[in-house]
Amino acid sequence: MIQSVDRAIRILGVLQGARRLSLSEVASRLELPPSTVHGILKTLQAHGMVVQDRDSTRYQLGPAVLKLGNVYLDTLELRSRAVTWSEELARRSGHAVRTGVLTFDEVVIIHHEPRPDGSRQMPEVGIVIPAHASALGKALLAFLPEQVDELTGDKLRSMTSETLVDPAVLRAQLAEVAKEALATEREEAVLGEAGIAAPIFDASGVAVGAIGIVLPAADWPPAESSFTAVREAARNISRELGAPRWPVPA
Amino acid sequence: MIQSVDRAIRILGVLQGARRLSLSEVASRLELPPSTVHGILKTLQAHGMVVQDRDSTRYQLGPAVLKLGNVYLDTLELRSRAVTWSEELARRSGHAVRTGVLTFDEVVIIHHEPRPDGSRQMPEVGIVIPAHASALGKALLAFLPEQVDELTGDKLRSMTSETLVDPAVLRAQLAEVAKEALATEREEAVLGEAGIAAPIFDASGVAVGAIGIVLPAADWPPAESSFTAVREAARNISRELGAPRWPVPA
Repeated sequence: MIQSVDRAIRILGVLQGARRLSLSEVASRLELPPSTVHGILKTLQAHGMVVQDRDSTRYQLGPAVLKLGNVYLDTLELRSRAVTWSEELARRSGHAVRTGVLTFDEVVIIHHEPRPDGSRQMPEVGIVIPAHASALGKALLAFLPEQVDELTGDKLRSMTSETLVDPAVLRAQLAEVAKEALATEREEAVLGEAGIAAPIFDASGVAVGAIGIVLPAADWPPAESSFTAVREAARNISRELGAPRWPVPA
Repeated sequence: MIQSVDRAIRILGVLQGARRLSLSEVASRLELPPSTVHGILKTLQAHGMVVQDRDSTRYQLGPAVLKLGNVYLDTLELRSRAVTWSEELARRSGHAVRTGVLTFDEVVIIHHEPRPDGSRQMPEVGIVIPAHASALGKALLAFLPEQVDELTGDKLRSMTSETLVDPAVLRAQLAEVAKEALATEREEAVLGEAGIAAPIFDASGVAVGAIGIVLPAADWPPAESSFTAVREAARNISRELGAPRWPVPA
């Protein structure tokens, strides 16, 4: 671990959480001397990773991070495969479709296919959801036991009254998810929202992502055909990525 | 400048350019010892900024950069304003609409409103275009003379046979752009593509972005009403950002 690089990324993380901060605010949040933080901020600024307000001299994330994020998406073979199958899944199910990957204890959305009703919907690429509170995350965790070990402290983060906060309860549910290769979530991350998702495997047989639909909690349960459609989308993408098999026979 | 932070960002830049590289490839591109690069890569990896292929041990950008990019977008007041006016501009002009900001010598697209014909179009948020070769970039540079000084070497980067590569020719064109607050581009970045754009100003009167339409070069020139619509969109966004005035009377 290179200390100053670690600090630089933690500075980006602080700006990510708080949006706009002065030098002394960043320094105090990281419990570092302002002079140390200043040198790192200036270096990040020289590369466009951070910019400074013209008026207030506060710091915020800069456009270079957006460019990095876009290249990351372009690099992901999973994403290019998901684009095609998401469109089909949205059409078959009538619901919005999300594809996500796991990063530590969160799912990051790498593709979002809006609900196919022509309504205007917020883009969701780049948003993160606690893995244990999302169908995508549970579909992944069910096949990544070593990741589950990392996230279970005494109590998981509560997002709503429905979030599974007891690691033992989560583990029991993940065992069920693994059997069917299908995870569900009902208002566990966001009130009023529910979802189902299935895991995507790559050529080495590792769960590298998940795809699923999102629907209003009031419309639960989705049609039986939607469950089939989600699993088929996940299996088709896995096959395109060279996965030797999908975990559960159709 | 903190050396190891600078190196870390240059490593991200190398991965951004090449997508997937081994340790020795990254090291040789940056002319640094592999041991130095290894320490930085491991630190970036610990934060999800970089991930390693399971099979090949090659490095690539990780999901954490996507999350950063999304927060950057959410932070930008310019972007939230552009979303509304882009929809209107796309409807009035019948063309796709891009909003961009300048980062060094490039424009980064922060919002993309697809052509309103219901066809499927690639999302463009996060893509970069050399500023001197894009209508958005020229609309910005015309009002940021100090940025023009920075980009003019002997010869600007050529993208097509139409790119303005002579700094003197670019400067002369920017002087015209400044008079009308309207920039045009015809196949200067991408063959077959043309655009017009106008600058967006913030409360301090500084050009912080540009908005414009993109059309097939074969459809050039766009309708006269499209020129008006682009300038009105830019002026309306500027007003919402608190700009004291728009540079040219309507």
